[in-house]
This record gives sequence, structure tokens and C-alpha cells, in this order.
Amino acid sequence: MTTSTAPEILADALAGCCNTAGQPLTDEQAGQLARVFKALGDPNRVKLYSLIAASASGEMCVCDLTEPVGLSQPTVSHHMKLLVDAGLVIREQRGRWAYYQPAPEPLTAAARALTRT
Amino acid sequence: MTTSTAPEILADALAGCCNTAGQPLTDEQAGQLARVFKALGDPNRVKLYSLIAASASGEMCVCDLTEPVGLSQPTVSHHMKLLVDAGLVIREQRGRWAYYQPAPEPLTAAARALTRT
Repeated sequence: MTTSTAPEILADALAGCCNTAGQPLTDEQAGQLARVFKALGDPNRVKLYSLIAASASGEMCVCDLTEPVGLSQPTVSHHMKLLVDAGLVIREQRGRWAYYQPAPEPLTAAARALTRT
Repeated sequence: MTTSTAPEILADALAGCCNTAGQPLTDEQAGQLARVFKALGDPNRVKLYSLIAASASGEMCVCDLTEPVGLSQPTVSHHMKLLVDAGLVIREQRGRWAYYQPAPEPLTAAARALTRT
């Protein structure tokens, strides 16, 4: 059992949820959408995500994320864990450092689920 | 002075923010995006928003929102205030009841700001 919301899981859960106008979301669907939005409901996490998404190399080392947001590495790692758990970034450990790649699908799917009605 | 984030304000603040890859968000931009996402970072508010967005008449009375989410009217009104403050719904008082219309622009703009990189 995992606590992560992988993009595929979110996409599966949302499949068809909004093609039927007036069809209310299930508790599970609402919970999954809220989880994605909640992960981005903090200015520091928005900044961290935007830095990773805008990285020219397609990934960023945690060692390069602390300075732009002005936070300690443990605090950045905490915020990053919430983004990873929501499926919004992918974490890869390489030697001493963790590297993060953006995974925009859950956000795209969540926004579309609420605006494509 | 108002605490509301009108869609125009958000759009202005975000204008051009993501056409330049690698350009970090300002504190103000990150705060405005986080505010929109935070408003939807709760399953009940996701449900309330989706009900209003899916309404065939384009609006919903607060009196019709309590039963689908199983919450008291004061609790629903509290959640609705957070959605109104984030610019995601428009509130109109008519006689005894408040009516709510969806305003998806802030969510669309916020999601685009983070995924169009």
C-alpha cells in the first residue's frame, strides 16, 4: 500500500467524471482532487514546483532548491515530500542528493475535472 | 481594501510570468496561486465547486448545496466564503438566499501558470 497519488490513479479515478453534466463527484474523487490542490496550497510549494517545472534540464537537485526559496534543506525536503505524495513531482536519489522532476498530469487533470463542465 | 482575489487581479499578476522559462515566480504571484489552490484543498469545497460548476442553470442556491454534501448551512456558507474570496465563485444575495455562480478563470490561470513551461 502506498500513500502516493500516481498520475495514472488520478486519471483513472477521474475518467468520465465530468462528461456527464450534473454528475456529482464521489467522495473518493473529491478527496483525490483536494489532495493535489492542497499540496499546492502553500506559496513555498508553488515556488518549488515552478522552479522544477521551469528547469532547463528537466530536473533539479534539492541542493539547488534551498537558495531560491530561502529555506533550510530539511524544510525544503518536507515540502518536496508533500509534492511527491500528491504525484506532482518524481524523486530520484542519486548518491548524496535527491533530484526532482515535474509531473504536471495530476494538476492538469484536477483543474480540467473542475472546469470542463 | 479587499481580501478578494478577483480573476482580473490574478490574470494581471500572472501575465507573462511563465513565458520566460526559468523565470521564478515572485512572492506575490506564488501567494496568489497558492491561495486559489488552498481554497480547493478540501474535499467539501471541491464538491461544492463541482456542484455549482455542473449546475444546469449556471448557478446554485445555498439552500440546494447543503443536502448533497451533508453539511449544515453555516458550514456550507463558511466553505463558500473561502471560494468567493479566492475568486472561484460569485455570490449574489437574492432575498433570503445566497446564489453562487462558478468563476473558473482563477483555477484555469493558476494551473496554466504552473504547467505551461
